[in-house]
Amino acid sequence: MPTIDADRLLKDLYAVREIGKYKTGVHRPTYSADDVKARHWLAERFADAGLEASIDGIGNVYGRDPRPGRKLLTGSHIETQNHAGWLDGILGLIYGLETARTLKTGIDVAAFADEEGHFASFVGSRSFCGLLTEQEMDVCANRETGQPLRDALRQAGFSGRPRQQVDVARYRGYMEAHIEQGADLEDHHLRIGVVTGIVGSKRYRIAFQGQQNHAGTTRMAVRKDAGMALVKFLAAVYETFPKIANPRTVWTAGDIKLDPGAPSIVPGKAELIFQWRDTDQATLDRMDEAFHGLLAEANKGPCTATIAYSGLTVPAIMDPTLQAAIAESARKHAPGLAQAMPSGAGHDAQILSQVLPSSMLFVPSIGGISHHWTENTRDEDIVLGCQVFADAAESVLATV
Amino acid sequence: MPTIDADRLLKDLYAVREIGKYKTGVHRPTYSADDVKARHWLAERFADAGLEASIDGIGNVYGRDPRPGRKLLTGSHIETQNHAGWLDGILGLIYGLETARTLKTGIDVAAFADEEGHFASFVGSRSFCGLLTEQEMDVCANRETGQPLRDALRQAGFSGRPRQQVDVARYRGYMEAHIEQGADLEDHHLRIGVVTGIVGSKRYRIAFQGQQNHAGTTRMAVRKDAGMALVKFLAAVYETFPKIANPRTVWTAGDIKLDPGAPSIVPGKAELIFQWRDTDQATLDRMDEAFHGLLAEANKGPCTATIAYSGLTVPAIMDPTLQAAIAESARKHAPGLAQAMPSGAGHDAQILSQVLPSSMLFVPSIGGISHHWTENTRDEDIVLGCQVFADAAESVLATV
Repeated sequence: MPTIDADRLLKDLYAVREIGKYKTGVHRPTYSADDVKARHWLAERFADAGLEASIDGIGNVYGRDPRPGRKLLTGSHIETQNHAGWLDGILGLIYGLETARTLKTGIDVAAFADEEGHFASFVGSRSFCGLLTEQEMDVCANRETGQPLRDALRQAGFSGRPRQQVDVARYRGYMEAHIEQGADLEDHHLRIGVVTGIVGSKRYRIAFQGQQNHAGTTRMAVRKDAGMALVKFLAAVYETFPKIANPRTVWTAGDIKLDPGAPSIVPGKAELIFQWRDTDQATLDRMDEAFHGLLAEANKGPCTATIAYSGLTVPAIMDPTLQAAIAESARKHAPGLAQAMPSGAGHDAQILSQVLPSSMLFVPSIGGISHHWTENTRDEDIVLGCQVFADAAESVLATV
Repeated sequence: MPTIDADRLLKDLYAVREIGKYKTGVHRPTYSADDVKARHWLAERFADAGLEASIDGIGNVYGRDPRPGRKLLTGSHIETQNHAGWLDGILGLIYGLETARTLKTGIDVAAFADEEGHFASFVGSRSFCGLLTEQEMDVCANRETGQPLRDALRQAGFSGRPRQQVDVARYRGYMEAHIEQGADLEDHHLRIGVVTGIVGSKRYRIAFQGQQNHAGTTRMAVRKDAGMALVKFLAAVYETFPKIANPRTVWTAGDIKLDPGAPSIVPGKAELIFQWRDTDQATLDRMDEAFHGLLAEANKGPCTATIAYSGLTVPAIMDPTLQAAIAESARKHAPGLAQAMPSGAGHDAQILSQVLPSSMLFVPSIGGISHHWTENTRDEDIVLGCQVFADAAESVLATV
């Protein structure tokens, strides 16, 4: 049975936390100076561990075991949301690295660029799986700054390099560890989550068009208040969705913008970003139907509501054999303290699962907090998670 | 009967439209370079008309008739909302100027700074009426840029100058002309509005505090979604207000902000700017009671809703004698084409009415559009309004 080096594991996590440190968290948006620094730091750690290290044309950091034989691919992402947590992404990478160091052979590690979607969804893992075209790269831009992806890659020093693609025959499968980013493990006093599937999602940006006017002189009867139309529509969604959702379905209006957004001006335009997630495709579809019905209702009012953007990801099922290996390892190291559970968040594993048997292991998030600099996990949970991960990885490689 | 010079009137309006021109409108925020330029331009026009012209320590442009005898004060404002209309404010000033030129004696004109509230409400007219303290000036800052008022005045070249205050004994009253900024005159095919009163208002900024979290992993049951709390509260207000309002009461959510405003993050904070207006104080109060009741309801949910800012203006009644003079003049020049009406917008006249008998005349706004660069009024309505204004002014002065 492999035994990981807990001090070495934590020391690496503490070290990378210093790159882009923000309060007790980190700020490393994709291709920012600190993100690039972290990628080079990680490549050096891969090389130290005896892996062939490279950074490719999309910024993926790849560490390949040069020895012969089939391998297990491990990975996650290294960039963060803005001013976010210190473990989101990097935990899975350092687990992979520590597992490679512990098992000595059979483990590759990949840091997939921009899982956090500063430019687009899963750019790095899609590139690795052959699901990202050059044409899409031409039009991708930073969602906040508008900087084109190509520009950002040039600035980062990665443009012109080839993009690594997965050699499916090389791998037994893909295993990714991650913080839970929810409070389910903590609430049930558990320490390991064995992920059964990753939720799919529907995402919409809805634009409401009304008539900008003076907030004192325009009578209510003749107004076309785009903000009011948005609020009434969203309140109707909030009224309807609980009636047709599953217990674990989630829905979120992450942003609302009124234009021009002045106290004494009736908003002439308004924009809503809305999404929902579930592991069950039929549930996703049922809610989509209701959403469109409410949108049609909204369009009977004085304003028009149109879909400015829509996107979706389909639910991803995790591989049963890999799940069983993680569950078995958890039984050894934390008997009675693991559970099977879905992932409410999206992860690179949902992309990898399209080309490789894939699986995920969760460790608890304190208070369920995530995407915020106060995100944290107890050191003993970090260490236990890695031990379970390494042991599961060894057993997966043993069955080849 | 005085006859105004229509060409001279329109020529002046066209000239000032060039200062800060934006499409067919203008962009002259208070104390901006273009606003300062416009103030100097106006002072020159006052001097050309034989008035003693000055710009004081708050940026008010004052034109005083040097001849003896009681006077009628006319005025309005010269700055604009951002990228807004070419007539909002300046129309009343050029009417005053043209009336001074036509009547030769008895007319003073004042351009009150920042009626549009880039720094605070009615800074210039309150200063003129002795209702603005030095202490308030110390803390006022630009609502968009945060630039302190004192800084802006220094940059504009106005700081250190004394602030002119009204000599109440000098004036028979105050008369202000303005575009309607609504579509009531147009809808009824009328050309002159005689303002009976100016609406009072209640204004609130409400801060919702929840818990920022991951939009995929945080179950609905344990969420504290500040944006959802805001939307449900506002939808309840939209449900309740129509039942307790008067036909002319108006209410507006001019801005909503979710924090951090990202697609996949449950908003931890949200902010709402909300106001309502009516000429009836009892109606304003009745709605205030309902608003607070709904706020208390909102506070039973998972988030807290607190009042971050509240403000009010009381309804202002226009002077009956001055109203009668305007109505009589309208009967002469546009028989059957005038109506008595409230003002849904705030105006300097509501401040002046606290120290002088005050009145307002409205001309139609095409399509009721205002606070937008497409705002407009037909030239013949502009000319007719000024003729009615000048004739009313003469009759008011004659009754002294």
